[in-house]
Amino acid sequence: MVKARQTTRRTASQDRGRKTQSQIIEGASAVFEEQEYSAASLEDIKEASGVSQGSMYFHFKRKEQIALAIIQEQHNRIYAGVDPAIADHADPLIRLMAISKMICEQLRTDSVVRAGINLALGQGSLREASARSYATWVDGVGQLLGKLDRDGMLNSDIPVDRLSASLVSHFTGGNLMSQAMTQRADMTDYISTMWRVFINAAIAEAHRERYKAELDSMFGGFAQAE
Amino acid sequence: MVKARQTTRRTASQDRGRKTQSQIIEGASAVFEEQEYSAASLEDIKEASGVSQGSMYFHFKRKEQIALAIIQEQHNRIYAGVDPAIADHADPLIRLMAISKMICEQLRTDSVVRAGINLALGQGSLREASARSYATWVDGVGQLLGKLDRDGMLNSDIPVDRLSASLVSHFTGGNLMSQAMTQRADMTDYISTMWRVFINAAIAEAHRERYKAELDSMFGGFAQAE
Repeated sequence: MVKARQTTRRTASQDRGRKTQSQIIEGASAVFEEQEYSAASLEDIKEASGVSQGSMYFHFKRKEQIALAIIQEQHNRIYAGVDPAIADHADPLIRLMAISKMICEQLRTDSVVRAGINLALGQGSLREASARSYATWVDGVGQLLGKLDRDGMLNSDIPVDRLSASLVSHFTGGNLMSQAMTQRADMTDYISTMWRVFINAAIAEAHRERYKAELDSMFGGFAQAE
Repeated sequence: MVKARQTTRRTASQDRGRKTQSQIIEGASAVFEEQEYSAASLEDIKEASGVSQGSMYFHFKRKEQIALAIIQEQHNRIYAGVDPAIADHADPLIRLMAISKMICEQLRTDSVVRAGINLALGQGSLREASARSYATWVDGVGQLLGKLDRDGMLNSDIPVDRLSASLVSHFTGGNLMSQAMTQRADMTDYISTMWRVFINAAIAEAHRERYKAELDSMFGGFAQAE
């Protein structure tokens, strides 16, 4: 009986801890929309999160720990955001295109995803976390491209690992550039162009039109033709 | 006679001014290799430049002015670094590939070019300068692609302006990713893959092999085949 009550109590306190942690992650992400990572202080983050000095210190001793928690939470949200119908889709390219579309949407609407991806870009002091983030993406995309390749859908003189790194870098650059130029209003234009380039460059000819039709129905065609 | 001496004196003082300015640009670029832009202080930059407080203040009142001067100097160096034989090359795609190769080399060896491009990426507070930088690149690349198109070398369902933005974003992402993962040791792998993807995706079939041969002789083939 006592044991059961202890368990319940511990769980309640764990819930509170998780709630505080998530408040700090939300608050810090909001701060990083206004200030660069290196300029923001723990004090700013505490203020924006609405938690006490003690709670803050209990969960995070240094700003870098908060940044790493945001990057992790961003990965979790992207993972959790994938529609099961997409995650189970038999076609790896459709899966990739749909996931990239969803990330565009999350970048538009979720400040934690925005902050996590910005922090993971790697200009700053979080180089190790950045390198891990990129490596995880190259590996994940590479596995799906490997499956496409085994299914005979690829027709390319470019090795699968280079194609995968190329997609991840292309996506990264499109995100950054549309952020700088239009606050990401035209990000999906960059990403749908990326996919059209990829389909032309690497998909076996017999399958290109079908994938382009999928792409257009997912992203819409080009807003303005030449 | 007096007039001539005044002119000489003014020129000598202008030379000193330019020298101080360029010392500050070099010093600040070195600082930005170690610290993020927003974390670096004017004091750090003054120390690294070896100029007096007075000289510093005479040329730059605010850190942002130094950042803008670095971005401008980076543009100048890239422009000045283009071999006349390349600048005059009749083939726009060979011109673009060779310029991208030269920028990879400058990024490896010139800290002002590195600092300028990093500052212009646009995560930080220099959004306007970033947007201008990107727009300049998209426009310049677009003009060369337009010429390719009129020469009948393009065979693509992607409008020239989207292709141009796609190349600039792909290059940007490759720079950033290779910086985060290998301190740019493998940047040319990203850029040569970018060009191979582009050639497959957008160049008329009859010209692809010739351009790939140019690409391989410029960048070397893939280090590791699949």
